[in-house]
Amino acid sequence: MLIRILGAAAGGGFPQWNCNGRNSAAARAGKPGFRPRTQCSLAVTANERDWVLFNASPDLRQQINETPALGAQADGPLRNSPIKAVVVTGADVDFIAGLLNLRELQPFSIYGSARVLETLAANSIFNVLDPSVVARRTLAFGQPASIEGAGCDTGLVVEAFPVPGKVALYLESTRADDNYGSREGDAIGLKVTDAASGQHFFFVPGCAVVDAELADRLKGAPLVFFDGTLYTDDEMIRQGLMQKTGQRMGHISISGPEGSIASFAPLGVKRKIYVHINNSNPVLDDNSPERQATEAAGWEVGVDGMEIRL
Amino acid sequence: MLIRILGAAAGGGFPQWNCNGRNSAAARAGKPGFRPRTQCSLAVTANERDWVLFNASPDLRQQINETPALGAQADGPLRNSPIKAVVVTGADVDFIAGLLNLRELQPFSIYGSARVLETLAANSIFNVLDPSVVARRTLAFGQPASIEGAGCDTGLVVEAFPVPGKVALYLESTRADDNYGSREGDAIGLKVTDAASGQHFFFVPGCAVVDAELADRLKGAPLVFFDGTLYTDDEMIRQGLMQKTGQRMGHISISGPEGSIASFAPLGVKRKIYVHINNSNPVLDDNSPERQATEAAGWEVGVDGMEIRL
Repeated sequence: MLIRILGAAAGGGFPQWNCNGRNSAAARAGKPGFRPRTQCSLAVTANERDWVLFNASPDLRQQINETPALGAQADGPLRNSPIKAVVVTGADVDFIAGLLNLRELQPFSIYGSARVLETLAANSIFNVLDPSVVARRTLAFGQPASIEGAGCDTGLVVEAFPVPGKVALYLESTRADDNYGSREGDAIGLKVTDAASGQHFFFVPGCAVVDAELADRLKGAPLVFFDGTLYTDDEMIRQGLMQKTGQRMGHISISGPEGSIASFAPLGVKRKIYVHINNSNPVLDDNSPERQATEAAGWEVGVDGMEIRL
Repeated sequence: MLIRILGAAAGGGFPQWNCNGRNSAAARAGKPGFRPRTQCSLAVTANERDWVLFNASPDLRQQINETPALGAQADGPLRNSPIKAVVVTGADVDFIAGLLNLRELQPFSIYGSARVLETLAANSIFNVLDPSVVARRTLAFGQPASIEGAGCDTGLVVEAFPVPGKVALYLESTRADDNYGSREGDAIGLKVTDAASGQHFFFVPGCAVVDAELADRLKGAPLVFFDGTLYTDDEMIRQGLMQKTGQRMGHISISGPEGSIASFAPLGVKRKIYVHINNSNPVLDDNSPERQATEAAGWEVGVDGMEIRL
């Protein structure tokens, strides 16, 4: 199984279009150590021919252009795509907007939770993906699904599970006591298995806390891609960028007693890679003390184009 | 007034993600004479500081990253954008999907016909642009509007007018005898005027035919950006790419007795530039006979990054 990080940044990307904070300004100026990143997505293949995307970010057209294996293949028919399926982990803009790049009557499958598929159905713009050509399949929790698309079994099996998190921003209610209308399944994690080899990894790009259930699930895993949105819960407020904490947005922090470094410490996960990294996060500076602390704790900081074989 | 073509390609861009036709394959392989293009959008400024976008393509994040004048400015506050307004000419994915890149609570204005604003309102995903932060303003036909946004008068005046065309694909009905549910205002053209200098140009990226009313309007214009989707009405069918003519899609052809070259010949337009060029169009090959014929007829073929001062 080959896994490629198409994009490692959180919503907005790095740099973010309207952000003049320290990191975005440095990336925009081309300062060494501040590598630009597109929005979070993985591409995975079990056979080096058929690919499955995990989340479809608004940067998907650029990501395909920069990844020859994902574009139309020169030895294929006039219209062809190696992308057989897209699995989405939520209804956030940075997880689903890229689907709009995949129009043009090309068969593939979209997999998502019932809540996410409801949102696609309620937004007519997604009908550019004609449901008679692009199948929409529900990922039911606890039921591993063989990922198929365009008449092809990709050889990947995906199991979805709910994780603590939040509903997409544009679907929020105003009720803080109800976690803004969030329901189970608004944030999900995925276990992705190569059916032939049995190798597997986890993809959890948005998660508010590592609770006991999630800790049990991840224990001893060979590889986890995990929510690296923020380094500290209040960093966006302290940097003057936005009046929201990470917890308010449904994202755990990297640091702190309840952060992901501390939460993963007893779990024995072999390889741990942060993705969905917000432009405010100091780990985006290759030379920051926070980056050093993160790597010293055994974590890698994801970057576009990184490939892992399992 | 400074005008910059952010993208000159039609929906899907050039190359198109799933297309292995002659043009897309050549562009993907980096063959000389086949310059890649992002999806159609213009950026215009009257004062070299505040910019107005004309259509927001799915490639907008990439277009902003490649245009330093459009990113957050280094001498501005922590969050800032030179983009004060976006004017959209229809509800097609390639005209509006890029709005989803402009979230993050940055004030600006969206201008569109009542039909387009209805579509934005009916698709909850566009609520990531909170209407209390991002104003939505109706462009009424025949009523020139001063384009404002984020408390700033951009110095540009826009007049919208309906042109013959078609409703966005995902909003189509099945009734061919009703032009698939199209109504006046589903395709519009824009006259853009620099209020200070009085200089103006037209932007008509989607248009099915140059009727007498449109011909009258464009007569003697200093500059027109016009629908260059297809060279011949049946080229997508002949190339085996899709079973639709240009007319079925609401797009005039460049060539032929009712094409745009012939229709513009008597109009005395000083500068004529094709935009919204589909990946099937042979004018995308810098060395094709069709390209030569187009340029011999006094037209330019738009390309990303082209700038014009008026």
